[in-house]
Amino acid sequence: MCGVFGIYGHKNAAYLSYLGLFALQHRGQESAGIVSTDGLNMYERVRMGLVSDIFNNDSLVKLKGHIALGHLRYSTKGDSNLKNAQPFVMKTGKGIITIAHNGNLVNTDDISDKLESEGAIFQSETDSERIVHLIARSKEANLTDSIIDALNQVSGAYSLILTTKEEMYAIRDPYGIRPLCLGNLNGAYVIASETCALDLIGANYIRNIEPGEILRISEKCVESIKPFEKNEPHPCIFELVYFARPDSHVFSASVSEARKNMGKELAKYDKDNIIKKINADFVGPVPDSGMYGAIGYSKESGIEFDLPFTRNHYIGRTFINPNQEARDFSVRIKLSPVKEVIRGKSIILVEDSIVRGTTSKDKIKNLREKGAKEVHMRVCSPLLKYPCFYGIDIPTKMELIAHHYDVDDIRRIINADSLVYQSIESLLNSVPQGTRYCHACMSGEYPIPK
Amino acid sequence: MCGVFGIYGHKNAAYLSYLGLFALQHRGQESAGIVSTDGLNMYERVRMGLVSDIFNNDSLVKLKGHIALGHLRYSTKGDSNLKNAQPFVMKTGKGIITIAHNGNLVNTDDISDKLESEGAIFQSETDSERIVHLIARSKEANLTDSIIDALNQVSGAYSLILTTKEEMYAIRDPYGIRPLCLGNLNGAYVIASETCALDLIGANYIRNIEPGEILRISEKCVESIKPFEKNEPHPCIFELVYFARPDSHVFSASVSEARKNMGKELAKYDKDNIIKKINADFVGPVPDSGMYGAIGYSKESGIEFDLPFTRNHYIGRTFINPNQEARDFSVRIKLSPVKEVIRGKSIILVEDSIVRGTTSKDKIKNLREKGAKEVHMRVCSPLLKYPCFYGIDIPTKMELIAHHYDVDDIRRIINADSLVYQSIESLLNSVPQGTRYCHACMSGEYPIPK
Amino acid sequence: MCGVFGIYGHKNAAYLSYLGLFALQHRGQESAGIVSTDGLNMYERVRMGLVSDIFNNDSLVKLKGHIALGHLRYSTKGDSNLKNAQPFVMKTGKGIITIAHNGNLVNTDDISDKLESEGAIFQSETDSERIVHLIARSKEANLTDSIIDALNQVSGAYSLILTTKEEMYAIRDPYGIRPLCLGNLNGAYVIASETCALDLIGANYIRNIEPGEILRISEKCVESIKPFEKNEPHPCIFELVYFARPDSHVFSASVSEARKNMGKELAKYDKDNIIKKINADFVGPVPDSGMYGAIGYSKESGIEFDLPFTRNHYIGRTFINPNQEARDFSVRIKLSPVKEVIRGKSIILVEDSIVRGTTSKDKIKNLREKGAKEVHMRVCSPLLKYPCFYGIDIPTKMELIAHHYDVDDIRRIINADSLVYQSIESLLNSVPQGTRYCHACMSGEYPIPK
Amino acid sequence: MCGVFGIYGHKNAAYLSYLGLFALQHRGQESAGIVSTDGLNMYERVRMGLVSDIFNNDSLVKLKGHIALGHLRYSTKGDSNLKNAQPFVMKTGKGIITIAHNGNLVNTDDISDKLESEGAIFQSETDSERIVHLIARSKEANLTDSIIDALNQVSGAYSLILTTKEEMYAIRDPYGIRPLCLGNLNGAYVIASETCALDLIGANYIRNIEPGEILRISEKCVESIKPFEKNEPHPCIFELVYFARPDSHVFSASVSEARKNMGKELAKYDKDNIIKKINADFVGPVPDSGMYGAIGYSKESGIEFDLPFTRNHYIGRTFINPNQEARDFSVRIKLSPVKEVIRGKSIILVEDSIVRGTTSKDKIKNLREKGAKEVHMRVCSPLLKYPCFYGIDIPTKMELIAHHYDVDDIRRIINADSLVYQSIESLLNSVPQGTRYCHACMSGEYPIPK
Repeated sequence: MCGVFGIYGHKNAAYLSYLGLFALQHRGQESAGIVSTDGLNMYERVRMGLVSDIFNNDSLVKLKGHIALGHLRYSTKGDSNLKNAQPFVMKTGKGIITIAHNGNLVNTDDISDKLESEGAIFQSETDSERIVHLIARSKEANLTDSIIDALNQVSGAYSLILTTKEEMYAIRDPYGIRPLCLGNLNGAYVIASETCALDLIGANYIRNIEPGEILRISEKCVESIKPFEKNEPHPCIFELVYFARPDSHVFSASVSEARKNMGKELAKYDKDNIIKKINADFVGPVPDSGMYGAIGYSKESGIEFDLPFTRNHYIGRTFINPNQEARDFSVRIKLSPVKEVIRGKSIILVEDSIVRGTTSKDKIKNLREKGAKEVHMRVCSPLLKYPCFYGIDIPTKMELIAHHYDVDDIRRIINADSLVYQSIESLLNSVPQGTRYCHACMSGEYPIPK
Repeated sequence: MCGVFGIYGHKNAAYLSYLGLFALQHRGQESAGIVSTDGLNMYERVRMGLVSDIFNNDSLVKLKGHIALGHLRYSTKGDSNLKNAQPFVMKTGKGIITIAHNGNLVNTDDISDKLESEGAIFQSETDSERIVHLIARSKEANLTDSIIDALNQVSGAYSLILTTKEEMYAIRDPYGIRPLCLGNLNGAYVIASETCALDLIGANYIRNIEPGEILRISEKCVESIKPFEKNEPHPCIFELVYFARPDSHVFSASVSEARKNMGKELAKYDKDNIIKKINADFVGPVPDSGMYGAIGYSKESGIEFDLPFTRNHYIGRTFINPNQEARDFSVRIKLSPVKEVIRGKSIILVEDSIVRGTTSKDKIKNLREKGAKEVHMRVCSPLLKYPCFYGIDIPTKMELIAHHYDVDDIRRIINADSLVYQSIESLLNSVPQGTRYCHACMSGEYPIPK
Repeated sequence: MCGVFGIYGHKNAAYLSYLGLFALQHRGQESAGIVSTDGLNMYERVRMGLVSDIFNNDSLVKLKGHIALGHLRYSTKGDSNLKNAQPFVMKTGKGIITIAHNGNLVNTDDISDKLESEGAIFQSETDSERIVHLIARSKEANLTDSIIDALNQVSGAYSLILTTKEEMYAIRDPYGIRPLCLGNLNGAYVIASETCALDLIGANYIRNIEPGEILRISEKCVESIKPFEKNEPHPCIFELVYFARPDSHVFSASVSEARKNMGKELAKYDKDNIIKKINADFVGPVPDSGMYGAIGYSKESGIEFDLPFTRNHYIGRTFINPNQEARDFSVRIKLSPVKEVIRGKSIILVEDSIVRGTTSKDKIKNLREKGAKEVHMRVCSPLLKYPCFYGIDIPTKMELIAHHYDVDDIRRIINADSLVYQSIESLLNSVPQGTRYCHACMSGEYPIPK
Repeated sequence: MCGVFGIYGHKNAAYLSYLGLFALQHRGQESAGIVSTDGLNMYERVRMGLVSDIFNNDSLVKLKGHIALGHLRYSTKGDSNLKNAQPFVMKTGKGIITIAHNGNLVNTDDISDKLESEGAIFQSETDSERIVHLIARSKEANLTDSIIDALNQVSGAYSLILTTKEEMYAIRDPYGIRPLCLGNLNGAYVIASETCALDLIGANYIRNIEPGEILRISEKCVESIKPFEKNEPHPCIFELVYFARPDSHVFSASVSEARKNMGKELAKYDKDNIIKKINADFVGPVPDSGMYGAIGYSKESGIEFDLPFTRNHYIGRTFINPNQEARDFSVRIKLSPVKEVIRGKSIILVEDSIVRGTTSKDKIKNLREKGAKEVHMRVCSPLLKYPCFYGIDIPTKMELIAHHYDVDDIRRIINADSLVYQSIESLLNSVPQGTRYCHACMSGEYPIPK
């Protein structure tokens, strides 16, 4: 997954981008970068690592100018190296173009083959670079038309920001799979993956970039173009389930509200079914992603909320788990079970989703070791059975526990006393109505023809 | 504040110390170190920074041996540098002594003056180094007697672990101000500031090191000595209010239970007083330290629990807040208010304690900006009016808001609709009875004569 | 200036390249890199800095395979950054091509403009990248023909090594400006800028790569192709005067012999002219480049050899010369005048060449400060009046003292008692006969039409 | 071996110390440090590595004040780590004392035992720290008397510089084993191991610190004290043979002159003995240490001087010589034999000294591989048979080839056609008369009673 942030027309463009990336850090922890321009030169800092490790006062001061573009990356295919880190700065015959991309194209291989056969040389494996090559080779006279020409050749999910020395383009694919929103800070235009980035810098939210829209910002004007064939938009529902930050709005939905609703839906189901039998002492989350789900469940069911785990805030990415020790400490070191809360209790444990099932299994084991009487797992997401081709890191069917097993098998594997998944139908009830969401990872219904 | 961890008699002593320090990281984030021994040599790694930054597989493999001692430090007086980082390894005429200290002596200056006048040369400003100098100069024949001789000359709070190439000493001052506990892992002895470190490595909790006890662990035996004049123990109640981790037991009290009780006590007070008038929509914590207090309040009052803030997990210590920007982002970047939860609501906000008042003020401001109707602040700790001389970082009266203002002034300053602090009496009701606690920072009653 | 080294068919290919780069380090101190292949993958390490700083055992072990290519760079135009460091690895439609280049093209701008107008995107400012783009776009079917096609479009000086996963190409431009030689080490083929690299690894010298030759080395065969229009070769005589290492042969000439001859030619001139009048006490070099010239002069003239300067071996590239001090220590810190040798003496000082004149001036000043009676400067090179477009860092006419002043002016500026430059004619007498050398920087006669 | 440098009363004290350490870098390459003071605080930078790696503009600017003290270290006993790096800053009851030491005490163990039995705690293994402990414990009232008291308890070689916040002490042991000199730079006092450091910064040489002298420099006065019992001084002759820089004066002798004389003495010997028989084509040095010896030999014998080796200037300390390769490249990579000079020639090779014999053997082998007809080795130093206890790194008898073999055996081992060592008598003829030198490493006559 990735996060993008752009700002046009502010004297502290790079510093505000740094803040914006901080707010979006949950969308990608592998690399981060900011490229700024003062109209004359491009200034660039792109590195592997977290925002807090990459930038300091000295490095921010060097990123001069009133236009800046930031990117966060979490790789999807093991291609984790600096060459793939963005934003990408590329010198073309049409000027220097900087690009930051969230999403995944589905026809990358075809485009690569075609371009290479014509003599193109790639420095990375990213979709972004292919897009800029297509722009550079376009026969269209101006940059806007070249971008349209290029994007007409690609297919897939893309929320893009491009900058030149004078302009910024914010673009969302016709299916609108990934979010992208527009804000305003004292006259400067701000583009971000999620509204939490606008909130942090104090920018006002204006609207989403619409599916299929190219928004071109220059010194003179802001121009909205919709050059693509119309498709029915399909924003990614998993952004609301798991990916986005609770304080964000994405696709005009409040993330925290949506998650509370998911918890409520689960409680309603239990009420109608088995809840009387389980007689739970409390409902509690797997922190932090299950928090609002558990609160929603508690509200709807009337069962008390409590915290069976505390979270360790000092875990870096470098935790060592050597072979010498048989036990795996990596789960225990992040989440510590709290004995007094757990002992002798029958617990409803709310989790956002289950991918491989291994961490759910470990957490339930931890609860039982601390004396839990019963553990009833409730999952805000439906069963994840299919890979995502549009930018979320659910790599192959093979690794998805729900591809191999049914609910009751999974319950046995993770050793829960009961296990309930959200249905796709009740998930759709949890989010604002009137939008058709992409739930391909749950249903296998892929909206974009390959 | 500091954390200490020692292990005696395990082949993976250094790795387990690394895990122990991870569990205790909340007790000190400035420096960390581990010193191990295989009976022949001492192996040492002490650095500024977090545990996750300091150790990797290579550096842990070099820390050979079956005895290891770890330390975490958070400086109290601006003397933040590598020279003061612990554990300290000191070559004396009585052999190599390694020391790790949690607490603060109150007669450091007198000891320093006396030792310097006799020709002693110090490399640091730490109490630990003074203690080892006293041991080295003792006329007593063996090490145990030299330690007793040395500690009879010091006054203050100390939970100490000392190691030589063959032995480990765990020591707690006669007042028992700071915690220190003993555990067992497959026959190895484990000493730690809090039980959460035992839990993480899977060690069994045996008992606390008692106030005034010297526990000497050697290959042949474990010996408990109580050589000091008896004093009434006064464990620090602020460990339970704020410092210790919720999943720990300290001084035999469950931290999470104690905090829930503090929330309940606050709710009882409100019930008996003003609660009907405020008609709150929900009670919520300042994450994460107010969590269990808010849950306790919710349970006792019946008012719903909700989360008005989400916490950003990617904040490093290097957040940049340059002069160029008038606004201070450092609070906002850590805690993000969630508009949908807050808007139009009357909120009871539970905080663990108020030191300077600045962050409480910022948080209430954030809530109001997001549309909160009313904000009622409830504080688990009584007013903090006096400095701590026993190791907690509440440096001078001058910086304590409660030293200068009464409750109603503070309410106005932080702009709360109402403000209730815990009383010392109800705080003492929240924790296990039968122990006399040190609450000098609240009452001004210092148990140790200076 | 740059140095290149390649080896084909040795199990320790990367380590031998590391040694080869060590031997060639004088040809470029700004960046260094090695790219190796085992036929399956390419392994790459390219960094700013010296060979000794860039590689260690760990990094060499990762450079697996039997084919390796190394490069050293000293930039010519202030474009000193990692993006321009070589070898360059480029993924093309014709496979992965790695390239290392010594020399300078003279039609880079034309090629860049043409390629960009066709949509090419460059990541660096190097000639090497342009050459690979031309190869990638060639309509020729196989790689050899594509290389010929590409090189037929460029003009200038190039000693090139290219590798793919299976092959190595060693190429020298038709004018043969820069050196490139072939050696053999236990059946492995070795290509290097100078023979000193062959000597260090114990390889046998076979022959020079000839001007206009493409040598293609594959598992099956070694093939020599001469596809270019014939030109009269013009090897760079400044390689013999200054650039190459004294223990090397370049263009089949022994560098140490050539430099001794230059000293002898200067002595002969003095004999026939003014030598009786100057009555020198000794002849000495500016270390280390004037060493063999001074020895030659001493032999021919019979005047004793002595060392007026010692050289400090511990100068890194990071010597600090802050504004706070009026004096410039950078010359004095490298070369220390030896008072006992200098005081009261009349000295013939042999220097390899004079570019800006500033260091000559400083050195003579140092000698006079230590009591030299007379300083007679003798320069192995003729006057350097013209820029080099073929890869040597003599950037613009404006900085060349000999472009602005005649010999007597220069003598006054550097404050020598007498000053004699070599004539172009006597320089040509110092080197093996029968070759037409490029001496454009001295004569202004550029062999390659622009 | 070590080098020391101090400056008192200059606004750029730290920068001048940095230059001074550059000039003295040959005396120690393992660690370097500068400690400065402005009378209020001490500023310190001490690191492992070379001067050029340790200091940059930022770090020098932080070393404020008008008094600075620098030190270079090359360890003698494998105790190579930061704890032993100097200058040492020690906080004592008599104020902060900074110390830098060149030399070795011979009663360190006795002093350590005595101090430890009294409770002293050492942080390093250095003599310097013991000296400061003795000063701190002295019953004398003022610092000068405490220093005298301390030094009366030690025995051995010491050229010391001590600084406090107001004063500087320059001290040389009564035997005067190591050099130490005094200079003046625009009114500031400068102390250095060798005059080359004075020359570089442009300071005037005043005189040597005399054996047994304590020179105390304060704002008010410069005071010379000679409080020790008189001994006959014995400066180390090996400083002149090998250690000091050729452009320095040490013990009032010119190093370059002394080395030329050593070469002349060797030539005289050969003239009287075998020179007619060997019919050498030229005399050449092992660079760089044999340079002046070879020039002296050439002058005296009339045999031509030439350079059979060139030296590679880019060798860092990190050259890798992995096991995978049978051959050892570490000698070849430093010195490259020049075939044209060597082939078919009968060579007199002048070396400064032979310690283990391994590099001499390698060099002769290199010459023979390049076609040398005969190699006659001449050594400026007499046979090195005994260890040095006064600070030079000739650790144990066991490693000295001359301890095990006689001259003819050594000739066979290193494979020379002839081998002549200097006699102690002729060595003493090479240096200024009237001084009694320490030549314990050659004669076994140790001047200081142990």
